Formats: sequence, structure tokens, C-alpha cells
Amino acid sequence: MQIKELGEFRVIGILTEMLASQRSNPGNAQSFSLNLSVDNGDDTAAWSVGSSEFQSEAMPANELFTTDTMVEGVHFTRETTSWQDLGWKSLASNISDVASMGGLPAYALITLGLPHETEIADLENLYQGMIDISNEYGLTIVGGDMVRSPVVFITVALIGVMSGEPMVRTMARPGDLVAVSGYLGNSSGGLKLMLEGESQQSESEIFLVESHRRPRPSVAIGKTLADSAIVAAMDVSDGLGDDLSKLCLASNLSANIFDYKLPIHPLLRSRFPDDCVGLALGGGEDYVLLFTGSPDKVNQVILELPAGAAVVGEILHGEPGCVTVFNAQGEVIPVGKRGWDHFG
Amino acid sequence: MQIKELGEFRVIGILTEMLASQRSNPGNAQSFSLNLSVDNGDDTAAWSVGSSEFQSEAMPANELFTTDTMVEGVHFTRETTSWQDLGWKSLASNISDVASMGGLPAYALITLGLPHETEIADLENLYQGMIDISNEYGLTIVGGDMVRSPVVFITVALIGVMSGEPMVRTMARPGDLVAVSGYLGNSSGGLKLMLEGESQQSESEIFLVESHRRPRPSVAIGKTLADSAIVAAMDVSDGLGDDLSKLCLASNLSANIFDYKLPIHPLLRSRFPDDCVGLALGGGEDYVLLFTGSPDKVNQVILELPAGAAVVGEILHGEPGCVTVFNAQGEVIPVGKRGWDHFG
Repeated sequence: MQIKELGEFRVIGILTEMLASQRSNPGNAQSFSLNLSVDNGDDTAAWSVGSSEFQSEAMPANELFTTDTMVEGVHFTRETTSWQDLGWKSLASNISDVASMGGLPAYALITLGLPHETEIADLENLYQGMIDISNEYGLTIVGGDMVRSPVVFITVALIGVMSGEPMVRTMARPGDLVAVSGYLGNSSGGLKLMLEGESQQSESEIFLVESHRRPRPSVAIGKTLADSAIVAAMDVSDGLGDDLSKLCLASNLSANIFDYKLPIHPLLRSRFPDDCVGLALGGGEDYVLLFTGSPDKVNQVILELPAGAAVVGEILHGEPGCVTVFNAQGEVIPVGKRGWDHFG
Repeated sequence: MQIKELGEFRVIGILTEMLASQRSNPGNAQSFSLNLSVDNGDDTAAWSVGSSEFQSEAMPANELFTTDTMVEGVHFTRETTSWQDLGWKSLASNISDVASMGGLPAYALITLGLPHETEIADLENLYQGMIDISNEYGLTIVGGDMVRSPVVFITVALIGVMSGEPMVRTMARPGDLVAVSGYLGNSSGGLKLMLEGESQQSESEIFLVESHRRPRPSVAIGKTLADSAIVAAMDVSDGLGDDLSKLCLASNLSANIFDYKLPIHPLLRSRFPDDCVGLALGGGEDYVLLFTGSPDKVNQVILELPAGAAVVGEILHGEPGCVTVFNAQGEVIPVGKRGWDHFG
């Protein structure tokens, strides 16, 4: 049996089960009171740092640990992603994972897999993109590894920090509202323009392409949500439909989405009047946050977010991971490309 | 200018200089009192955890952060490395980096780059090797990432923990003795046997091949060294000559090695009487520790190590990074393959 037959997520399930069933405790981490608070299966792993003196506030603190990889030809191509944008984006996806827990990015290691023939000037541009986003988000790159590889790949490992408890995928409850913290589909709209070879000179084209080239992880929003006692969240990296399905699966629940409630930017709608709903449901790399909570709590926290958030659906009992999309007439609408499976 | 023209280490130097010159402080880590104690350029990065209550002992504690990658066709081939051994070895190199600072491995993330056609059974074997070494060394795998890739690669990101201050490459001093904590060349002797298609059935052959297949990072030794106030150390992963050169370069000093003092296992010497000195000087993946210190300190700490250590040379003023090898007659001997440059 090969990966392509079983699918990425079932393979990860098998390996995660192996880890859980054979794990021996206590390990060195527990000896140092670094107790695991979020295990395999969420946007990041996390452990509590036991001491109340870890920081000035008398709150429990957690460290977050995540990694994400971009492979040439799979996650990006040189045609649509410059080296500088690649640097920015390879860190952005990791920062977004930390943001989805409510944390701040702290330290990163960069692994570069590169062919012999890679130009030094390209690498300098790559690092410039990384430095730009690091400085903007208060992150420090502290090392890495450079290896020869027939294909370009970039792996980032990131440590984040936060006060309080991380938001997770498993804590959605029936009756929760589903909200998203920003516009959906802009990044994939920009990619679509680039792939179609559009001129990218109108206001909407410049805006959408910039959304794709320089996604902005929602760190401040994540911190506000966690501080406001939101407990269930994740980032929208693979598309709302796909990511909400993962959150529902982790919480053993299902969800409904209402397509007319999706936050679609006027410039996306004007440029892609027919495709914008599909892009909002299925397009990845927007890095807004998806969160759930009781109606009271969600409506309250939306008031605390400077740019607000859009309630797009609700959490229900039902087949775990099943997400159904309704239109304004109450009809179930078929969903095309809802995210992606890397091995699909 | 391409990587192959400039060489891996000079490229890393350029990128590290970019990071240092453009870093903005303070970042989020400092806001949480996670202050960087070891920056780019050592076996691991490290930051202090400020509180004395971080653990029961009233000592400063540090967290360590490292990553290491194995690429098929570059760092391993399926012919000489089984999937299970690959799992073991991909974690071993990272654990060894933590050991070289004096730390214990705590939490790991695993990134797998895999072709579509990878067999699930192979992945299970890979993870079995990882679980075996994790349990033996008190390490917990807490997540990872699986991506499609035309070539197999495995990246591990590892967090370690320690009491006290990390040992580093920069702290060697003129007049220090150079010591190694175990036998050199066994792993490369085993690889040589496999590449030559030897039967691998004699005692020496079984011993050497096992040394290559299942290297054992020197975690307990590293802890003893750090607890004994050794301050300069690194692990021997690329070969003694190469690694000592890196330590000397980081400390801005040079070193002499005496080839007749190299700790060569009797089974390596008996199987490779002509090549054993070259294997001991140039062979990688032994994962013993290389450390320096004043003669008094080194001789004292050797008594505290259950298996002792061998003094193989001395640190001197001189051309930074220059390592000279002498034989018993006091002649400088030419050194052939002294480690490797991944892009060389």
C-alpha cells in the first residue's frame, strides 16, 4: 500500500497512533516541568512552562513548536514566487500556525535544501524576505541547516510563546458559531491572476497579487482571541472548507456554512464576480483565523477585534468533519475544490 | 556566483551576517525573558529561561534548538540504510547536537518529504526507528509535517533542555588539551564494509556495521562535561579533522593532533590496519564528543567519565581553523579526506 492509495491524512493517522501507543514516560521534558499541553494533531505542539515566574504576569505560559515546508513544484514555482516572496511566505505559514494558538513567534531555524547551481544572489533575496517578516513580527532567526538537494525545499521550525492556554482544534462545541477574522480568497485570487498571465496593473489586480505574495499572519488577532477566552481556533491555510472540516473532525462534530455570509473583499468580487465564492471557500494561504465559541462569546469578542470578524456558520452534532455549504435560498451547494491533499 | 563556486560555509557566513546586521530587538522572546544565550553558528541555538523556579535546582536553565536534515542520494542511500535505521539516524544526529551542548533531548517535530509511491510499511519502519531512539533517550515526538517531494528527505527539529550554561565552539583557549569521548572511525568503517559488499559476518564486521547503522549520541557524557565546567565542546559528526577545524575557527585558534593518540577500536584496527587512522581522522557519524579545557580540568573530568576520554591534541595560537596532524616521529602527515563539504 502506497501513500497515494491511502491519502496523506490517513497515513499521518497511522504514524500518530504508533507514536501514542509506544511513547514511554516520563521523558526529559517532564523532568524539567515542560509538560505537554498540545500533542500531535493541532497547528502546533505546546508545553506549559510551570513556573509563575517565567514572566512577570502571574499566568501560566506555554511554548509552541511548529514546522512547515515548501517544496518547489509542489508548494510553489519560480514563475509565480520570487525568492524574496518565498522567504516571506515560508515563515508566514509557520507564524500563522503560532497565531492560531494565540501565541507570538519567538525563535526560528531555517533548513534549505538547494541544488549546487543555486545563485548566491537568490539566497540573499530569500533571506531578505525572511528578515523582513521576522522583524515585522518580532521573530529571531537563530540558526538552521543547508543541504544539497536536487529540488529546492525550505523547512522552517518555529518556537512561539504565549500567556495562558493555547486555542486548539478539539474544543469546538455543538451550537458554537463559526467565525473568520478576515477576507477569504484574496490570496488564491492573486495566484489565479498570475497563472492566467494577467497584466496585474489594475487596483484589484495589484491588491490580489500582493495578498498572494505577502500574506500577513494574524498574530494580534490570535492573541486577542486567546485573551478573550476563545478556546477553539485554527488558521485558514488550505481553504475554509478544508480547514473547518479538520477542526470539526478534531472536535468530533460537523458544521454548516452559509455562502452569503463569507467575507469577500469588494476587489475580489469585482475582479472575479463568478468565482469569488469558490475562491473564498476553497482558496488557501489567506492566513486569517477560524474560531468558534458560544454566540454570546463570539459576538462579544468580535467587538474587541479592530477589524471585526464574520460569522459564517455553526457547529453541529453530525458526521465528524462533514461541512455543508448553504446558499441564501437554503439550498445545499456543491463544493468544488475544497482545499487540497498534498498526495491527492 | 553559485553555491558550488563559493562553498557551503562561506554561503552560510554571508547569510548569517545578513541576519546579524538586520536583526531588530527586542523581539517577542525577550518579552518573555527567553534571552538568547547561543546564536547562529554553533551545534544548537540556546536561550536561557530566566526563572530559578523553572526547575527544582537553583540553577539557570537553558533550552536548546537544533535541526538536521537527511536527503536521499546525498546523506544516505536505500542500499546502505534501511528505513528503520534511517529513522534512528535522523534523530541521532539531532540528539547528538543537543548532547554536544550538555543538554537532554526533549521534544521533536518530524518533517517527511516523500514521493507519492512511498510504501506505508516503509514509513512504519521509519517511525519505528524513531520511536526506538526516542524512548531510549527520553525524547517525545510531538508533531511534524508530511509533504510530497520528488526526493526523500527527513528534517528533524529538536528542543533540548539543560541546567547551567551550554558548552560552545567559541570557548577553546590556547593551551587547552583536545579530548574525544569515544572511539573514532567505527561508523565510517562500517559504511566502507557495506559499500564494498563485504559479508559482514565476522565479529569486527558486525561491530562496525552496527556502529554505522545505530550510532549512539553521547548525551550522558555531554551532561557530565557540562556539569564539570567544561565550556568548549562539539560533536564529531563530520570527522575529527573537519569538526576540530570548525571549533578552532569559531574560537579563532588552531590545533595540533597526534595520530598515535587517536582512540581506535581494536576491531577497527584489525579489520582496517592500513586505513584505520584515516577513518578515525576523516570518518563522520561517530557522534562522540570533542572537548577542550585546561590540562588540569581535562585530566580531572576524564576521571569522571565512566569510559574515560582520549587526549588527542592541543589548542594553539595560529591560523584560525588550521588543524595539523603529527605522527609519532613528529612529522606532519598529509590528511586526505577530512570530513566533507555538502556542496564540495
